[in-house]
Amino acid sequence: METMRWEGREFLILDQTGLPGRAEYIRCRDYPEVAEAIRRLSVRGAPAIGAAAAFGLVLGAMNLKVDDPLEFLARVEEIADRLSTTRPTAVNLNWALERMLARLRSSMPGKPGELVAAMAGEAEKIYREDLEGNRKMGRFGQELIPAGARILTHCNAGALATAGYGTALGVIRAAHEAGKKVCVYAGETRPLLQGARLTAWEMVRDGIPVTLITDGMAGYLMAKGMVDLVVVGADRIASNGDVANKIGTYGLAVLAREHGLPFYVAAPFSTVDMSLESGAGIPIEERNAEEVTHLAGVRVAPEGVGVWNPAFDVTPARLVSAIITDRGVVRPPYEKTLRELGIGE
Amino acid sequence: METMRWEGREFLILDQTGLPGRAEYIRCRDYPEVAEAIRRLSVRGAPAIGAAAAFGLVLGAMNLKVDDPLEFLARVEEIADRLSTTRPTAVNLNWALERMLARLRSSMPGKPGELVAAMAGEAEKIYREDLEGNRKMGRFGQELIPAGARILTHCNAGALATAGYGTALGVIRAAHEAGKKVCVYAGETRPLLQGARLTAWEMVRDGIPVTLITDGMAGYLMAKGMVDLVVVGADRIASNGDVANKIGTYGLAVLAREHGLPFYVAAPFSTVDMSLESGAGIPIEERNAEEVTHLAGVRVAPEGVGVWNPAFDVTPARLVSAIITDRGVVRPPYEKTLRELGIGE
Repeated sequence: METMRWEGREFLILDQTGLPGRAEYIRCRDYPEVAEAIRRLSVRGAPAIGAAAAFGLVLGAMNLKVDDPLEFLARVEEIADRLSTTRPTAVNLNWALERMLARLRSSMPGKPGELVAAMAGEAEKIYREDLEGNRKMGRFGQELIPAGARILTHCNAGALATAGYGTALGVIRAAHEAGKKVCVYAGETRPLLQGARLTAWEMVRDGIPVTLITDGMAGYLMAKGMVDLVVVGADRIASNGDVANKIGTYGLAVLAREHGLPFYVAAPFSTVDMSLESGAGIPIEERNAEEVTHLAGVRVAPEGVGVWNPAFDVTPARLVSAIITDRGVVRPPYEKTLRELGIGE
Repeated sequence: METMRWEGREFLILDQTGLPGRAEYIRCRDYPEVAEAIRRLSVRGAPAIGAAAAFGLVLGAMNLKVDDPLEFLARVEEIADRLSTTRPTAVNLNWALERMLARLRSSMPGKPGELVAAMAGEAEKIYREDLEGNRKMGRFGQELIPAGARILTHCNAGALATAGYGTALGVIRAAHEAGKKVCVYAGETRPLLQGARLTAWEMVRDGIPVTLITDGMAGYLMAKGMVDLVVVGADRIASNGDVANKIGTYGLAVLAREHGLPFYVAAPFSTVDMSLESGAGIPIEERNAEEVTHLAGVRVAPEGVGVWNPAFDVTPARLVSAIITDRGVVRPPYEKTLRELGIGE
């Protein structure tokens, strides 16, 4: 099942809010539909929203009724601005939009039709490179996975979070394909249950044994010796190796260290934000209270209660055993090893 | 609102599964109704199920049609056995039933009517002592709470988990009543959301500021410096100070130590099981998969996923800063300090 599909004049997004019960595509004809799909998490996961925003920008450019190249560029830049503000934490969103604008600028001057074609080509390239990058990440990362490993993951860093195959789940898939007979514990990942709904679904479909736990069970799971390592994705990695990822990741990292378990982060190099010295600079999205107070539309918490609902947290680099990227696996000191990976950019 | 009420020939249990939306009492006329209410968590929390089982035993004894005192005793013992197997982890259940049987045996021989009256008196004493004990615990415990403290708690160790006032929430209430202007972060406590449904409700009703978080947010909350201490209840405490409590407690204790925050456990001395050397001997209840795979009756996880659903975990004594009991506050080494509290039993 594809996370998204470009059909030349329309862009289809799998509506992940309905999974696993309902698998329907949202048919987008202009960029506001893509922005809305990103905002309401129909498409989510840092690499996936990067690729979706790129295609959204193509739709926006395609619908412009302007002939002047400079006005065309200005209007596309405005649309990119709007797409970039849909969600603040994942750096891939800005990375993909910047790359699209760079391609557009390098095609200037040109007729709007030619410029749109160049942008569509770039968006398809971003999508294809993400898929290929995930396969590479899988090959690099699976070397860290022992045969028979019992792997804990959090949220969904799978095919659904990317152009396909997945980052953390790509590493697990590659280990599975290498015959390592791994099994997976999926943290359900409240409030939106991406672990229960999406990761469990991907693993069941691939025939990889998967056991669901609530987020509060991870510590006891480790204390009982039932897990060998943790692997998660990332929404943004600072140049020092601090990792922003789905809320709950930091707690897992502390628990992994307490139990002497490796804690791996899998993400394409496009998730690394070399402009940030540390994770303190990563903006953390806070989402609305209803995600926590309501379940399946039913209010469970009383009126009058406050809610704190950050969507991500920051795990300090010192708790990260290794970062698995599409350019190779790096270990501390990340200031040095991440910079080396970036050489030639 | 009372957690339970004895009405002489009937025993009313507040059905907590419907809270906070629906507050209805279950009217019990014989012990199997009480056993069922405990099993389905209509009444839950270690001290509350102890008291409820005691009243259940009175109902069972009341309905016996036997005149011979020895046969009466044997039949009551059978009923106690059935009540004691409803849930395995909380030691207060067995503690209360043993106390009821001891009272019955010490009243022998006697007419069934007299024996039932003695038992009813003992059950009311257990209930009253729990309430008084919680007030004492509150007074002892609140001395540990600084003015303005931001307190994280987990699950519901409140009035609803006890005869009234609560253990962990009793400490918070006492601090509030002492004018300390505390505020509370309530972990929602998946899978059954006792934090979101019950703790948030108790705090809102008492006018104590309360903010709800999902269980995975606790680590980031601490990392952001938003919490000063943790206080939780307990279902069983081993003689070395290891604490069984609601699943997720262990993870909070590890995180509290990582951030240099005090981690307090509040429980009546009846929760201490001096027969156990360590927490390794505490039986941990595992509950059914549907609690995790379904939300409000709707399946959220795919078919084919496995589930691990332990209801409790064990926090090693080394992570517990102090245990607040109705006999006073004890600190490590718990082997010694808990034994001293028990002298004179």
